[in-house]
Amino acid sequence: MSIKTIAEMTGLSITTVSHALNGTRPVSQRSMELINEAAAQINYRPNLAAQMMKTHRSRTVAIIIPATEQNNSTNCFFFDVLNGAKSRLQESGYELIVSTYPESRPQDFFSGMSILHRRWIDGILLVPPTLRYEDIARIEDCGVPVVLVDRWVKGGKLPLVCSNNREVTVEAMKVLYQAGRRRIAFIGADFPNSTAVERYQGYLDVLEELGLPRDELLICRMDAYSMSCGMEAARRVLGAGADAIFAANSMLCLGTVKELQEQGIHVPEQVAVIGFDNYEWTEITNPPLTAVTQNASLMGRTASELLLQLLDGKQPEQRVVRIPAALTIRQSHGL
Amino acid sequence: MSIKTIAEMTGLSITTVSHALNGTRPVSQRSMELINEAAAQINYRPNLAAQMMKTHRSRTVAIIIPATEQNNSTNCFFFDVLNGAKSRLQESGYELIVSTYPESRPQDFFSGMSILHRRWIDGILLVPPTLRYEDIARIEDCGVPVVLVDRWVKGGKLPLVCSNNREVTVEAMKVLYQAGRRRIAFIGADFPNSTAVERYQGYLDVLEELGLPRDELLICRMDAYSMSCGMEAARRVLGAGADAIFAANSMLCLGTVKELQEQGIHVPEQVAVIGFDNYEWTEITNPPLTAVTQNASLMGRTASELLLQLLDGKQPEQRVVRIPAALTIRQSHGL
Repeated sequence: MSIKTIAEMTGLSITTVSHALNGTRPVSQRSMELINEAAAQINYRPNLAAQMMKTHRSRTVAIIIPATEQNNSTNCFFFDVLNGAKSRLQESGYELIVSTYPESRPQDFFSGMSILHRRWIDGILLVPPTLRYEDIARIEDCGVPVVLVDRWVKGGKLPLVCSNNREVTVEAMKVLYQAGRRRIAFIGADFPNSTAVERYQGYLDVLEELGLPRDELLICRMDAYSMSCGMEAARRVLGAGADAIFAANSMLCLGTVKELQEQGIHVPEQVAVIGFDNYEWTEITNPPLTAVTQNASLMGRTASELLLQLLDGKQPEQRVVRIPAALTIRQSHGL
Repeated sequence: MSIKTIAEMTGLSITTVSHALNGTRPVSQRSMELINEAAAQINYRPNLAAQMMKTHRSRTVAIIIPATEQNNSTNCFFFDVLNGAKSRLQESGYELIVSTYPESRPQDFFSGMSILHRRWIDGILLVPPTLRYEDIARIEDCGVPVVLVDRWVKGGKLPLVCSNNREVTVEAMKVLYQAGRRRIAFIGADFPNSTAVERYQGYLDVLEELGLPRDELLICRMDAYSMSCGMEAARRVLGAGADAIFAANSMLCLGTVKELQEQGIHVPEQVAVIGFDNYEWTEITNPPLTAVTQNASLMGRTASELLLQLLDGKQPEQRVVRIPAALTIRQSHGL
């Protein structure tokens, strides 16, 4: 009835008004303005209840992502994931509810949404806080499609979109090798998540491939992505005679750079460095940093795409999509 | 009826089960687990329609924030705002829908939500893309409370939570003055938003207070928060004989630092620098950067607090809340 009224007020068809109000199909900017005006004039509030009963859909998806303390640039990564996911959902008229959990309390990953909302969203994008499927299995109790983003879990069959962490680590290591480095240290995290695991695995694999010995003194896996952990790890591997450092996280890389500065070590002449994640500050280190660039936004976008396919009742062509990360070559790797 | 079933299955009271399922009151972790299990077992889906009709609430709030291209650390700021807002809403059982708009297309600020959702959310947290109330007035057509975050608009009476941009700029300028600087340049943006305006106004005010002449050659207001804009602005004010630079944005500050490096200018001996926003990379510049630290998370949290008060039908004690920003003193300011 209200739709009919708005159609009469605007001179637009009932179909157009209905699509505009339900977000089921895009309409022109001008029509949207007319409809908005008319809807405001008659104080139109769509009957979400009727909508949901008719379509069994709220047209709302939740994204569950980790967050660190503020002013920590690692938050940028998941903001970019979120923003990419949102952009794709928006094109299909879906809203995005965001839920965050602290990396330090992974067991809270699912408590950021009230039960009411959990049982009412249409789908979930999840950055899992753990490697074990059992720990996240209850998310499937929601009875809606779930797509994993950035990190996989062992077991389960959930679709996944993430970077090619192992391959890009191998690539970075080979660049250091080609620059003549033979004592290449790995600084990463011993977190129970797949990005930490895959980067470490890439390091071990390439050592073997290149015929380099595995020296435990050159391996530092820390328990936090922080500058102080990066500094401590760098101190240790420098003490063990590293001639190159691969830092598998941006905060650990920042700490590495700072420790090298404080010890007055010349990069790359004395020690070469390649870092993970290519934020703009990598351009102001001395020399500018060679770093891995991930496409976080495309990761989020692709995860939404998979989820929308599942919501349409289709099976995605690929259950696992790897978004290529690439090395941005500057000067810190040597040569 | 389902609530009664779950109460029987778990041995908990109907009241407890009802609060747990509706998110209206916190219940113990253990009870929550029991209720979740039982709810999953009987495939309970709460009747959101009935809920909304009874309470006229969806218990969902929207946050509308700007986003830049990816790998840009300015995105951290709004992620921290979002995360702070979410933490407070979660305590009261509200969900957060996120909508982003590109800073370069401010007119799109409101189109990130479908009309369906706009007319159904309980309240809005808005980082306005403009200075003019007229440009955002239609947001009030939603008929729900709106709280502005980070930036005000001219006119209107919307509640606001933001930093004390003017005061902290004055403070930073006085530090540079006390370090003996008399040709202090301002690098900022000529964006139509209140953070840009207030930081610039702080600069002009303090010049007058200190009896320093206003030299247009020392003022660069750029049209983007980018490293290249920062570099260009730094080139210009260095050419005009600046002995200190106040960079009113983190990306512009990064560009400033890079330009100083490339020209081989010693900081702070030749040119002193204070920047806005205190990300960790400020610790690896040579020397470490003195910078303004904003409390983005508290800003988001406080905005949620105001919105929740409005949703409870209360008027907040203060319509405008300023979250103090503070200088983090390191070495780039001189002395």
